[in-house]
Amino acid sequence: MSENRKITLYDTTLRDGTQSEDVNFTVVDKIRIAGHLADFGIDFIEGGWPGSNPRDMDFFRDVKKSSVPIDRITAFGSTRRARKKCEDDEIIMALLDAGVPNITIFGKTWDLHVREALKISLEENLELIADTVSFLKKRADKVFYDAEHFFDGYKANAEYALKTLITARDAGADTVILCETNGGAMPEEIFNITGAVKDVLGDFPFGIHTHNDGEMAVANAVTGVRRGAVHVQGTVNGYGERCGNANLCSIIPNLQIKYGYECVPAENLKKLKDLSRFVDELGNIKPDTHQPYVGNSAFAHKGGVHVSAILKDPRTYEHIDPALVGNTQRVLLSDMSGKSNLIYKAKEFGLDIESRDDTVKELLNRLKEMENRGFQFEGAEASFELLIRKAMGTLPNFFDLISYRVIDEKNFSCGTPLAEATVMLSVNGITEHTAATGNGPVNALDSAVRKALAHFYPVIKDMVLVDFKVRILSSQDGTEATTRVLMESTDGIDTWGTVGVAENIIDASYQALADSILYKLMKDKK
Amino acid sequence: MSENRKITLYDTTLRDGTQSEDVNFTVVDKIRIAGHLADFGIDFIEGGWPGSNPRDMDFFRDVKKSSVPIDRITAFGSTRRARKKCEDDEIIMALLDAGVPNITIFGKTWDLHVREALKISLEENLELIADTVSFLKKRADKVFYDAEHFFDGYKANAEYALKTLITARDAGADTVILCETNGGAMPEEIFNITGAVKDVLGDFPFGIHTHNDGEMAVANAVTGVRRGAVHVQGTVNGYGERCGNANLCSIIPNLQIKYGYECVPAENLKKLKDLSRFVDELGNIKPDTHQPYVGNSAFAHKGGVHVSAILKDPRTYEHIDPALVGNTQRVLLSDMSGKSNLIYKAKEFGLDIESRDDTVKELLNRLKEMENRGFQFEGAEASFELLIRKAMGTLPNFFDLISYRVIDEKNFSCGTPLAEATVMLSVNGITEHTAATGNGPVNALDSAVRKALAHFYPVIKDMVLVDFKVRILSSQDGTEATTRVLMESTDGIDTWGTVGVAENIIDASYQALADSILYKLMKDKK
Repeated sequence: MSENRKITLYDTTLRDGTQSEDVNFTVVDKIRIAGHLADFGIDFIEGGWPGSNPRDMDFFRDVKKSSVPIDRITAFGSTRRARKKCEDDEIIMALLDAGVPNITIFGKTWDLHVREALKISLEENLELIADTVSFLKKRADKVFYDAEHFFDGYKANAEYALKTLITARDAGADTVILCETNGGAMPEEIFNITGAVKDVLGDFPFGIHTHNDGEMAVANAVTGVRRGAVHVQGTVNGYGERCGNANLCSIIPNLQIKYGYECVPAENLKKLKDLSRFVDELGNIKPDTHQPYVGNSAFAHKGGVHVSAILKDPRTYEHIDPALVGNTQRVLLSDMSGKSNLIYKAKEFGLDIESRDDTVKELLNRLKEMENRGFQFEGAEASFELLIRKAMGTLPNFFDLISYRVIDEKNFSCGTPLAEATVMLSVNGITEHTAATGNGPVNALDSAVRKALAHFYPVIKDMVLVDFKVRILSSQDGTEATTRVLMESTDGIDTWGTVGVAENIIDASYQALADSILYKLMKDKK
Repeated sequence: MSENRKITLYDTTLRDGTQSEDVNFTVVDKIRIAGHLADFGIDFIEGGWPGSNPRDMDFFRDVKKSSVPIDRITAFGSTRRARKKCEDDEIIMALLDAGVPNITIFGKTWDLHVREALKISLEENLELIADTVSFLKKRADKVFYDAEHFFDGYKANAEYALKTLITARDAGADTVILCETNGGAMPEEIFNITGAVKDVLGDFPFGIHTHNDGEMAVANAVTGVRRGAVHVQGTVNGYGERCGNANLCSIIPNLQIKYGYECVPAENLKKLKDLSRFVDELGNIKPDTHQPYVGNSAFAHKGGVHVSAILKDPRTYEHIDPALVGNTQRVLLSDMSGKSNLIYKAKEFGLDIESRDDTVKELLNRLKEMENRGFQFEGAEASFELLIRKAMGTLPNFFDLISYRVIDEKNFSCGTPLAEATVMLSVNGITEHTAATGNGPVNALDSAVRKALAHFYPVIKDMVLVDFKVRILSSQDGTEATTRVLMESTDGIDTWGTVGVAENIIDASYQALADSILYKLMKDKK
């Protein structure tokens, strides 16, 4: 085990992370993320590959004008091309044009690639590495050397792979990084090969960069550190090409909480969940509810056995205190029969019902009856909060629905179907009757209800539905079964979930829709 | 390293997997999944906890009437309660009532839990284990003993933890399983503790069951096997409470391809991606495109550097041949990979299209266009088969739809909503125009279509819809998004899945409905 307990964190969300086919950041996004990463305590932030695309160069231009501490930023590129001097190689010069203090370059480790991709001799590749590192080191504060395909290269020709590292070190690299580029190595290989590197490099700092193709990226990164790596490369939430890069949101708490390494200050670790969410929001990626440490379900407990055990002793089913990473325990609302559960949940919404015996009793009866009908409040906390407030008598009567009608029709000789909804409702005794079309019955109904209410409550225009899930509850006959609709809405500030249950999908959708609007109106009034 | 290369696979998707807050299977879903798991080569399939909820008992009742090999099925429960005989303990008796050959029970390992949760002496807990295992072993073919919280228990009191295993073994358990219940152990702990267990148990078979709270579930399971475990428990796609269980879709290829263990026949491994998708579809879970081995992006290449390298030598950025797990490389829209896939799929339905170049070409174009619109045929094999038969020109024209109209209305002063559908269609030039009501728009439409067709095809009366799933595809605005409807139908002999995609949920439902009826008519004509 290494004596050095301080681990250098190197984030490549903005470069390798954007290789993911579903991730795209604007330049402004990238600068905002870099700012968050720096605040969180990431030591180095790889901003992009200048010269590979214009957006990356824009980032380097604009980040210097921002409040992001520039000493954290690195530009990424490759060793110079064969038969070119560094100063004549536009790839190398673009790295300098980026004008940031730190530069990372990758070079070839695997003899096969040197011969077949670069088509040069093994010796010449070493010259490329030495030349590029020493050229850049004279012009930058720090130079990181990424040994691409290090583990595959080592397996093919260990001596040569080690020689590339030594060459980079001797040319002035500050750190050399062992990259497990194809992502398929198992932890044993990382263990053995990293150990061999440590034996050769001694106290010279080296790092680890892994990918998740065998679902081993986090294990491999941690194994690298356990064998002497003092620098870890990864991405927030494990973004990256194919199966993603090593997920810093798991590596950091694993190293810091489980093994006692110093990664970020403990008070910053509490912002881990926020960081994870922030990056998902800017990346427009739906957060993985089951993500270790930071997911909404990471400390959620459903089974009855678990819930009673967790209340007795959280260690039983919680490997850490969720507050350490800014997360919270969630006792799920299914099996919401117990009084203490209900009081606990109400407290989460800032509602004290403990002293109000009648309210509690009424709520328990209502919940039991609703659960029998198929209601379930996991993911629909807004509907649950409305229910409590209704029982407490603190929910204003924002509107009354009088009637609706939805018509879907299709004539197969002329193509597209038509969906039309009419809605009649009243607000403070004033009746509004209107109609709207949509590309489906729920969309038409949603449009008509909002149209009717927007006269009275213009804030409704700020909210949008972001997700809509339908589940069939009983399976006697699929289309005759009870339908549960779960909706997720947002107004750009908050996101909330609501639920509706009915035999008729339109009716269930309407309930969830009405709750969603009610919640928005209540929230804004508070 | 263990000499034993055969690994017993134990799936708990249907039990521990359903502890995930977003996973709910119907009884029919569970039986279909069990069938797929058995076909794939999973040795044991944990069906549920009889007595914990009625649905689990229904599964055990119905699975015996199905074609699923019953010797694979296990029922899950706990050791008997303190101060009760096994025969007087309804939890134990429910396990026998399930009437399947294999039984798994969990018991306490951690001295703290014995004292504080069970509130009995350490000695008495050993009696519970011994008693329950021997009682069940007399009445079941195989008894598996899950040592709950084994690793935490071992760290607290190693001697006692080992004693619980030995007690279960000596009472007749076939395998004892080391459960890392709270999910936060690091691979080193698994390495050390599993090694200590191996030293004590020698050749007696033991297993490993891990959770993903530290993003280490797969690494921990593989480490367990490397240290002597011969039985692995996990779930398809890593479903499970909190951060999920160990993901069998990664463990199996890691063990089999990377380490050379025998898990499933190599030709079955090619169905890994299908299995993963099938379970996601029935669970109504959006597949993780970045999932190792089976995700759509697992072998997708975006970066320009990667793409040219991959064409030169796939080993560069692909850790395995994707075909080994039924996945495909995605670089460009490679005609060849699509084509061979299609021919392979058609063969599964007994259809030979290999020699029919035009049909194949037409189908590939049609599939590409449909997939762009959001169609997906996992779990909808019937729609896929119809598509091929249509292209081959072997599908009779059973009926033509002319038009439909569905009206949903609700007057809030008089309660229940009304759903009414009218349908006009023709069979062999004879027009039928009829109407029906239902308790929802899809049910009304279903009733009207069947009513119109039953005159011509009375066999339609034998089929029922058993499930109906709705997935929203894009999330710009929940109710405006494209909708995919997956339907499951049965005629008591076969069960088949169909799919429809449209912006309008009614239109998507109609497509799936029409395919379902078409499939039944085609099937009966064969």
